[in-house]
Amino acid sequence: MTNQTLKGFRDFFSKDLFLRYKVIDIIKQTFNLFGFSPLETPSIEYAETLLGKYGEDADKLVYTFPDRGDRQVGLRYDLTVPLSRVMAQYNQAFPLPFKRYQIQPVWRAENTQRGRYREFLQCDIDTIGINSYLADAEIIAAIFTVFKNLNFQNFVIKINSREILFSILEKSGLTDKIQQLSVIRTVDKLDKIGVEGVKAELKSKNVPEQAIVDIFSNIKNAKPGEKLSELINSAKALGVPENILVFDPTLSRGLDYYTGPIFEVVSMDAKIGSLAGGGRYDNLIKTLGGPNLPATGIALGFERIIDLIKELKLLPEEKDSKTQILVVPISENELPYCLKLSQELRSKNIATEIYLEVGSKVDKQIKYADKKSVPFVALVGQNEVKNNIVTLKTLVNGKQGEVNLRDLGKMLQENLINQ
Amino acid sequence: MTNQTLKGFRDFFSKDLFLRYKVIDIIKQTFNLFGFSPLETPSIEYAETLLGKYGEDADKLVYTFPDRGDRQVGLRYDLTVPLSRVMAQYNQAFPLPFKRYQIQPVWRAENTQRGRYREFLQCDIDTIGINSYLADAEIIAAIFTVFKNLNFQNFVIKINSREILFSILEKSGLTDKIQQLSVIRTVDKLDKIGVEGVKAELKSKNVPEQAIVDIFSNIKNAKPGEKLSELINSAKALGVPENILVFDPTLSRGLDYYTGPIFEVVSMDAKIGSLAGGGRYDNLIKTLGGPNLPATGIALGFERIIDLIKELKLLPEEKDSKTQILVVPISENELPYCLKLSQELRSKNIATEIYLEVGSKVDKQIKYADKKSVPFVALVGQNEVKNNIVTLKTLVNGKQGEVNLRDLGKMLQENLINQ
Repeated sequence: MTNQTLKGFRDFFSKDLFLRYKVIDIIKQTFNLFGFSPLETPSIEYAETLLGKYGEDADKLVYTFPDRGDRQVGLRYDLTVPLSRVMAQYNQAFPLPFKRYQIQPVWRAENTQRGRYREFLQCDIDTIGINSYLADAEIIAAIFTVFKNLNFQNFVIKINSREILFSILEKSGLTDKIQQLSVIRTVDKLDKIGVEGVKAELKSKNVPEQAIVDIFSNIKNAKPGEKLSELINSAKALGVPENILVFDPTLSRGLDYYTGPIFEVVSMDAKIGSLAGGGRYDNLIKTLGGPNLPATGIALGFERIIDLIKELKLLPEEKDSKTQILVVPISENELPYCLKLSQELRSKNIATEIYLEVGSKVDKQIKYADKKSVPFVALVGQNEVKNNIVTLKTLVNGKQGEVNLRDLGKMLQENLINQ
Repeated sequence: MTNQTLKGFRDFFSKDLFLRYKVIDIIKQTFNLFGFSPLETPSIEYAETLLGKYGEDADKLVYTFPDRGDRQVGLRYDLTVPLSRVMAQYNQAFPLPFKRYQIQPVWRAENTQRGRYREFLQCDIDTIGINSYLADAEIIAAIFTVFKNLNFQNFVIKINSREILFSILEKSGLTDKIQQLSVIRTVDKLDKIGVEGVKAELKSKNVPEQAIVDIFSNIKNAKPGEKLSELINSAKALGVPENILVFDPTLSRGLDYYTGPIFEVVSMDAKIGSLAGGGRYDNLIKTLGGPNLPATGIALGFERIIDLIKELKLLPEEKDSKTQILVVPISENELPYCLKLSQELRSKNIATEIYLEVGSKVDKQIKYADKKSVPFVALVGQNEVKNNIVTLKTLVNGKQGEVNLRDLGKMLQENLINQ
């Protein structure tokens, strides 16, 4: 039991972390480019702040506990509730629109299953304080640029709006708000359970047969309408290619709180659901205890994105370490020469290791380099010290030869550029 | 109560975060350069893994609670216990030496006071599996390079060893191990309470008068000895200037678990204690439930380092946003032109915002740019669209003039470089 990670929690090692750091960096740079700025909030909040915000089912998944001062507290469950708390706490302090991104872990006491973790990275951007759909277009353009910069090729951004969905349902004879939301939650499953599945579930929800027929025919005939067309045109003007933007009147997004446009990024390369999803939620911040401000935003499915980048090899594979060269003194006598050499290489920004157990067998040292995917080993014996050289071994092909100290740094720098 | 952060917890906004991200980045790059690789562990561990490791006093400061499956769990209290758990769990999986850095928040249920937080960033590097003091020298060289790269000027690295301290105490007639550790904890307070304070506390601990006199005279006459001199020479060969490395026989480090060299980074510019501290702890990993492996490492005082960087202005001041230019359409008519311009500037890697409430008063838009420290505003009316220009306003001096679209990107890129 002890000396193990808990179920649903993960240790991350260097190879994975180098990739995650790179992806996070690309995401941050892209959001900065669009004028979004970072926000970070505490891991622990008053339980009162966290509970009762997403319904009873969600409440069960929040880690709550009494702290040492017997206050009921809990761990961050998402990034929207803390954002609402921030908007309430500092109220007038930020110039509006408040455009923020937030990349932090969240915790959910879920039953673990494949791909579901109890601790995972959440990554949101939102624009607070703007009614105009221009804000939604900007979110879509920013998110498109993120996926482009991550080398995603084959993806679309599905767009719909809650107004269009409600109008489809009203035209189909469903006018009750609660029934409408219930129907939307079923239509949201179209990708998972298919047309027949949705029809069956609607039937089981006592939606009249004729209404079900009408819903599907109204979906078929739906048009984006003026406001959504304008949004799509703005997104195009902001650089999103036309073929990426797909009006999809069946797009529903499961959650009840959306009030306007909704959008989802879907990869054609993988059946792992959406890579990002969001929309306009003009009432939510107030409902969550914040001020009455319109808002729109999107959440990236960070863990899915990482999985797909690995699967499709969208970014260069990372190694276990950044080390370019392992310096190996053959004996204690060569240590000062090797220390100095390491220092010189590092001052040229070449990641360098020196094997710390001097006098170990050379084979053992080369094996260490190999295990850590270090590409080069510099062997240094008496002869090398005398002639101001190293014997450079390239591990990928076993080739070795003498290299002048003067040339070594330059050679390694060029190798780095060519990687 | 609700809608507030808990005491001891902090929200971080963009200006602070940009600085923190930059500092973290410099630290990571430097550690990579020395062949250290990142590790991240879960925030939540079995309580059994966390408790009983640092004594009863520390146990009281660990946030523990039952999870939804009634397992006793707790929040990460430091990064050494999770490291030991990792070494035990994966045992033979890593090639030794295992050189890792870890930068993650930790949680402590402390009474809050100025500069003490319940959630703060911890930043450790450690080398596991090497007896040789060369590993300690490398840690010292890496840490020196971190502070150099963060533009710290006026600092020293104090070095001592537990062997030297024990030998001083033995020569002073104190042979009992428990008494020795107790005396070391008092000598550790020398900076805080001065010579007279230490003498008084030793007296109150029933250390004989003659022994107290002997301790101070033996400290005065202490020499680093062969092994520590070798460590200091290795650190020099690895690029640490001689005047930075200070042998200080009074350096004690409060914690009991150190077994060999100990070291501390101290800034001469501020009276905020040490900026980093660590040493060799060859028995700790086994004591904590890991395998029997020697180890050495250092922890950076991240929050203190940030405070000092701000106080001494060691890095350029960050702004609230990275935005270089706010594009202002005078009316709805200029919006398409402005959207396209924004996209073009962003494609040249210039962070650009467009004011999302089109038709707002120009004054209001300029005020927004000013509040977010955006340096430039591009005003776009009928005339600008007709002539393919913008009217560029420099907010710092209020100057404005017409700029060709062709020249705008280049101008802003140059401005970025000169910043």
